[in-house]
Amino acid sequence: MKKLFLSLALCGIVQMGFGQVVDKSIDIPDLDKYQTLKCDFHMHTVFSDGLVWPTVRVDEAYSEGLDAIAITEHIEYRPHKKDIQADHNRSYEIMKDYAKNKDVIVIKGSEITRPMAPGHHNAIFLTDSNPLDTKDYKDAFQAAKSQEAFIFWNHPGWDSQQPEETKWWKEHTELYNNGCMQGIEVANGEHYYPEALQWCLDKKLTMIGTSDIHQPIQTNIDFNKGEHRTMTLVFAKERTPEGIREALDNRRTAVFFKDMIIGEEQWLRELFGKSVTIEKINKNEKRVQFVVRNNSDLPFYLKKGEHDANLIYFRTYTIEPKSKHTITVKLGDAGITSGKVNFEVTNMVVKPGKGLDCQFSF
Amino acid sequence: MKKLFLSLALCGIVQMGFGQVVDKSIDIPDLDKYQTLKCDFHMHTVFSDGLVWPTVRVDEAYSEGLDAIAITEHIEYRPHKKDIQADHNRSYEIMKDYAKNKDVIVIKGSEITRPMAPGHHNAIFLTDSNPLDTKDYKDAFQAAKSQEAFIFWNHPGWDSQQPEETKWWKEHTELYNNGCMQGIEVANGEHYYPEALQWCLDKKLTMIGTSDIHQPIQTNIDFNKGEHRTMTLVFAKERTPEGIREALDNRRTAVFFKDMIIGEEQWLRELFGKSVTIEKINKNEKRVQFVVRNNSDLPFYLKKGEHDANLIYFRTYTIEPKSKHTITVKLGDAGITSGKVNFEVTNMVVKPGKGLDCQFSF
Amino acid sequence: MKKLFLSLALCGIVQMGFGQVVDKSIDIPDLDKYQTLKCDFHMHTVFSDGLVWPTVRVDEAYSEGLDAIAITEHIEYRPHKKDIQADHNRSYEIMKDYAKNKDVIVIKGSEITRPMAPGHHNAIFLTDSNPLDTKDYKDAFQAAKSQEAFIFWNHPGWDSQQPEETKWWKEHTELYNNGCMQGIEVANGEHYYPEALQWCLDKKLTMIGTSDIHQPIQTNIDFNKGEHRTMTLVFAKERTPEGIREALDNRRTAVFFKDMIIGEEQWLRELFGKSVTIEKINKNEKRVQFVVRNNSDLPFYLKKGEHDANLIYFRTYTIEPKSKHTITVKLGDAGITSGKVNFEVTNMVVKPGKGLDCQFSF
Amino acid sequence: MKKLFLSLALCGIVQMGFGQVVDKSIDIPDLDKYQTLKCDFHMHTVFSDGLVWPTVRVDEAYSEGLDAIAITEHIEYRPHKKDIQADHNRSYEIMKDYAKNKDVIVIKGSEITRPMAPGHHNAIFLTDSNPLDTKDYKDAFQAAKSQEAFIFWNHPGWDSQQPEETKWWKEHTELYNNGCMQGIEVANGEHYYPEALQWCLDKKLTMIGTSDIHQPIQTNIDFNKGEHRTMTLVFAKERTPEGIREALDNRRTAVFFKDMIIGEEQWLRELFGKSVTIEKINKNEKRVQFVVRNNSDLPFYLKKGEHDANLIYFRTYTIEPKSKHTITVKLGDAGITSGKVNFEVTNMVVKPGKGLDCQFSF
Repeated sequence: MKKLFLSLALCGIVQMGFGQVVDKSIDIPDLDKYQTLKCDFHMHTVFSDGLVWPTVRVDEAYSEGLDAIAITEHIEYRPHKKDIQADHNRSYEIMKDYAKNKDVIVIKGSEITRPMAPGHHNAIFLTDSNPLDTKDYKDAFQAAKSQEAFIFWNHPGWDSQQPEETKWWKEHTELYNNGCMQGIEVANGEHYYPEALQWCLDKKLTMIGTSDIHQPIQTNIDFNKGEHRTMTLVFAKERTPEGIREALDNRRTAVFFKDMIIGEEQWLRELFGKSVTIEKINKNEKRVQFVVRNNSDLPFYLKKGEHDANLIYFRTYTIEPKSKHTITVKLGDAGITSGKVNFEVTNMVVKPGKGLDCQFSF
Repeated sequence: MKKLFLSLALCGIVQMGFGQVVDKSIDIPDLDKYQTLKCDFHMHTVFSDGLVWPTVRVDEAYSEGLDAIAITEHIEYRPHKKDIQADHNRSYEIMKDYAKNKDVIVIKGSEITRPMAPGHHNAIFLTDSNPLDTKDYKDAFQAAKSQEAFIFWNHPGWDSQQPEETKWWKEHTELYNNGCMQGIEVANGEHYYPEALQWCLDKKLTMIGTSDIHQPIQTNIDFNKGEHRTMTLVFAKERTPEGIREALDNRRTAVFFKDMIIGEEQWLRELFGKSVTIEKINKNEKRVQFVVRNNSDLPFYLKKGEHDANLIYFRTYTIEPKSKHTITVKLGDAGITSGKVNFEVTNMVVKPGKGLDCQFSF
Repeated sequence: MKKLFLSLALCGIVQMGFGQVVDKSIDIPDLDKYQTLKCDFHMHTVFSDGLVWPTVRVDEAYSEGLDAIAITEHIEYRPHKKDIQADHNRSYEIMKDYAKNKDVIVIKGSEITRPMAPGHHNAIFLTDSNPLDTKDYKDAFQAAKSQEAFIFWNHPGWDSQQPEETKWWKEHTELYNNGCMQGIEVANGEHYYPEALQWCLDKKLTMIGTSDIHQPIQTNIDFNKGEHRTMTLVFAKERTPEGIREALDNRRTAVFFKDMIIGEEQWLRELFGKSVTIEKINKNEKRVQFVVRNNSDLPFYLKKGEHDANLIYFRTYTIEPKSKHTITVKLGDAGITSGKVNFEVTNMVVKPGKGLDCQFSF
Repeated sequence: MKKLFLSLALCGIVQMGFGQVVDKSIDIPDLDKYQTLKCDFHMHTVFSDGLVWPTVRVDEAYSEGLDAIAITEHIEYRPHKKDIQADHNRSYEIMKDYAKNKDVIVIKGSEITRPMAPGHHNAIFLTDSNPLDTKDYKDAFQAAKSQEAFIFWNHPGWDSQQPEETKWWKEHTELYNNGCMQGIEVANGEHYYPEALQWCLDKKLTMIGTSDIHQPIQTNIDFNKGEHRTMTLVFAKERTPEGIREALDNRRTAVFFKDMIIGEEQWLRELFGKSVTIEKINKNEKRVQFVVRNNSDLPFYLKKGEHDANLIYFRTYTIEPKSKHTITVKLGDAGITSGKVNFEVTNMVVKPGKGLDCQFSF
């Protein structure tokens, strides 16, 4: 009843869900020179094999506090085709129009959906998706490239296509060499691919995290438990499509996957510094206390690093989201006047299996 | 990614959400001769003005533990028509096929969607929805009637069509007299219409409660808060389409709306008796204790009724869902050996503003 | 383990639960000249018949964003006396000390716990609770009065003491006349007493709402469902004990009970105006649209009032917390250029059964 | 108000929270010869440094569906001593009495609370806690031993006592050799100690998991997110104190910590087999499908093991709680008629870093 005849309704409710934004949105601080934008560049609607009308994707993004989304219907796989006839740009058009009042940036994309190799890839920042509907996959990539799309390899470790291990194929080398691959999904939905993280570091590719959502988002993500969709943090000069593109081209991203932030060390170091600040240091002969505040909605898991034997402190420590902690370090030798409390932030992943090395100094 | 190529997938996940059924399903006891079926006879998909693919409605119903749903797309209002070409039976067909593995009964219906009077009506148990697409509303009702549909008036107090009060129009008398109205929605989504309850009692019409859901269900219903969709409880001889129809024809229904059960006194009395049982009565000179158990997921709100001045007991009392309570009644006169503790169950509504009168006897 | 030897611990965690404050705290706007303070003036610990150590009450208050609490142990009822020997000031002392780092105001009180009449009363802003331990209840009230306490009648409709109806006894008249009653609990825990609301209006008594919590607060309140404890909103010139007292003395309070705000019309009107603001009015020949924003965490339930027949609008309408709505009013006569959309805010209760009358003008 | 004068109350509510048990209790299947009992052998109340009255621990256990709890106040550390004078058996007595109506087994224990070495130990199944209050720790252990207590080392890796690593001291060898150590906490609250797991395997010690709760339980555990307290699963011949003791003495336990079950391979293998059953195997030339049902509330995380190259299947797979899954294995060679799908259940930990090896055969 509610949705019916809204334009004619005596009492048209436009509920913007402002309140819900507060609940579902996750505070992640900006960097000095860049805004931290929350983006999801991979999703589907009924126009390919998704299960919701395109406007739902905008509503979901809005209520989760996302800054930008890309719609990436499959070019080659459209199981609802019998009932839905439309060209490859159609769901973007519906979303674009609807998003005007929601302050969500919508980016046109398409998923080039092929067997391995090369598997599935998203081309985003397209101007027209239709030319990607080609027989040979190479032509599809060329069509995307000729539109100056940003192209990334999707779920490289998907076991339906890579049942034994996450391999890089010669076809990927070819795409990479031909300027047809600028990024890789380091995480997709419930899965994280450490091999992809290493490839991004080695080959200077942009790290991407996406939801690849097909269902209504609440079916997969339990917001009530504090869960969030897998997404890309984009460190952008401005909150515009152009700003996002410039950041992607310059590899200023990180992947937000469960309670992990995965990315290049420089961005993670700055992000940790903006999140966790030392408010005060209390020192006496026996101990030093660091009063630290976590301004973000992220938890940080600390693990003791190599350290001066005179500093006696935690083995592991969790800095909870939006909290204030007093961390005490006992001094083995009363004469100590300065030192470094070294630790690894294990959930800020800078390479496979390795967290960010940090320290509190006094 | 998950939904893609499932039939070809190496590892096809068919997650039946068994666990979720337990969480979202609401225990309401059967009656002596009838099963209590949870049914929702009013909903939409992308095939009219809803926002999900038809299969989503089956998944939702399954995970909420519903026994049956009717799909009731608007005949006259199809805002996605530009993109979705299909006849009026199509969403039913998709759901019917998908529901086989889910043990959810799917009933074919359509919403005859007209200005007031007569407003909107659902015809369910149709064999073919297409003949209802007529110019004159009377022809649509006749088409439904000729298929032996069960027809009910939707949201009679919807303020877009009845801005001042919930009125019965001469058109409704005509439909009623012509055998084109067998029931009325006493509750629709967030709204309850007491006038409709009275009309059902007076005119021997079947009481219906529906969700009228357009969005993904989680957008409107917060299951995490224990909320449920508005639904019809059908007291059926058997859990089949025929069993449901027989019960509707004989007005064996109640409406489950928020924490209220609305219906004819005979069904509510039996439902209360099946839900709340007295396990033990402890009596001494000073007081009587009733040890009562609520076997259902429904709360019951008790309000003191007229009573013997020698019985001193609660003014209001809440029997929580799935709980055991010891209710103490003080005896003003030590000589009392029997009595009646009268109360009204205020959330079992038997007519507008009136709850079910009950008693515990000792 | 966590709580043990904290002062000696190598790593003393002082987790202030900053993040939780955001979740549990409820935004209610300030008034023009007064801050809106969230206060709970009735609670217990193990020092009377409560079940938690006094510091827990401070932690709970802090994490719910309360500004002030009063501790009000029973003077006459101390079932843990065998194990806990302490004078009547002791739990206050523990809380006072602990609250320093939490920015929660703690007020010393005691519950004078007598059979009806006069039943239970809280005396708060005491300097010493011990003199209230007297044989005759009148002496206890005099002891409180001589300390310039603020005294209010607790749960006047508690059916253990008033099994048939909420009566005012001659003992209450006497207390009132003797300056021993300045307020009444209009709501206590799960119960609201409309009679008490009327008495407060008639006799110029201060309206109080309290939790009367005995258990760990999460046992009774499900914060996850958005529930909150029953509390008093105090409209104070400053956030200090003195500021609160001055406001209580001048009856600048409202009671926050479930989704109701109960209070004098002047405070509720201003509170509604601060919460719901009209951002824009769009008018054309056929309709007026009010774009309204609700800046608070309170919902507001609107019900149509008496109105110009040319204005066609909602019968009931819910303004959700923290949301933006477009409310459309259809114009019956195209010539209308101004008007008043009248409604009652049914959950802002200004007298028993009556909500606040408001209007949107254009 | 609610807790006051319950025995005199006109209306005494004994709310057993039946419904809540369903919500918070976690289904874990019994084994062939043993019942699976959920037990927590480490907790505190206001009688040592905890923050709740003893009865609260019984209520919590009941509503979480625990079978047994041990109360283990610190002997040496009683910060509330100024206000609470009682001997070391007192909180047990209060709980024992209260638990009669709740069907929770309460076991008397005490925490011998010493600096490292030997650190903290719990002695449970005591008959009298008072004799453990000695100057020399060895005397305390002897007092416990002479009462035939079951003694286990608490939080062996607590960084306040073991800041650099989880070490076994000569004092522990001595206790072990003297029959004063029968078990070790492999997990305590938020922490898991892999070293302790290895020690239990090597030295035939019983594995224990405990909450060590001091706060109201909801402060530390968010049941709404599906969290549970750390506990010991006891595989007992009967649900009695004696049955529990016999199982502890014979090392029939596992530790339930977050989403991990830690224990000896034999118990974990049987537990997996009782939880996950194969309902049907569908085989054709191209693939085998295993229809599996998880009857428990535990998730199981599967990781591919070494396997026949002709079997092509998942790399990782999650079997959700209370769910039904169809797991498809593609056959590389059409001639295969039988095989073994090997995998490791990574969250059933049989030694540090190693999950349970299992297989589905066809």
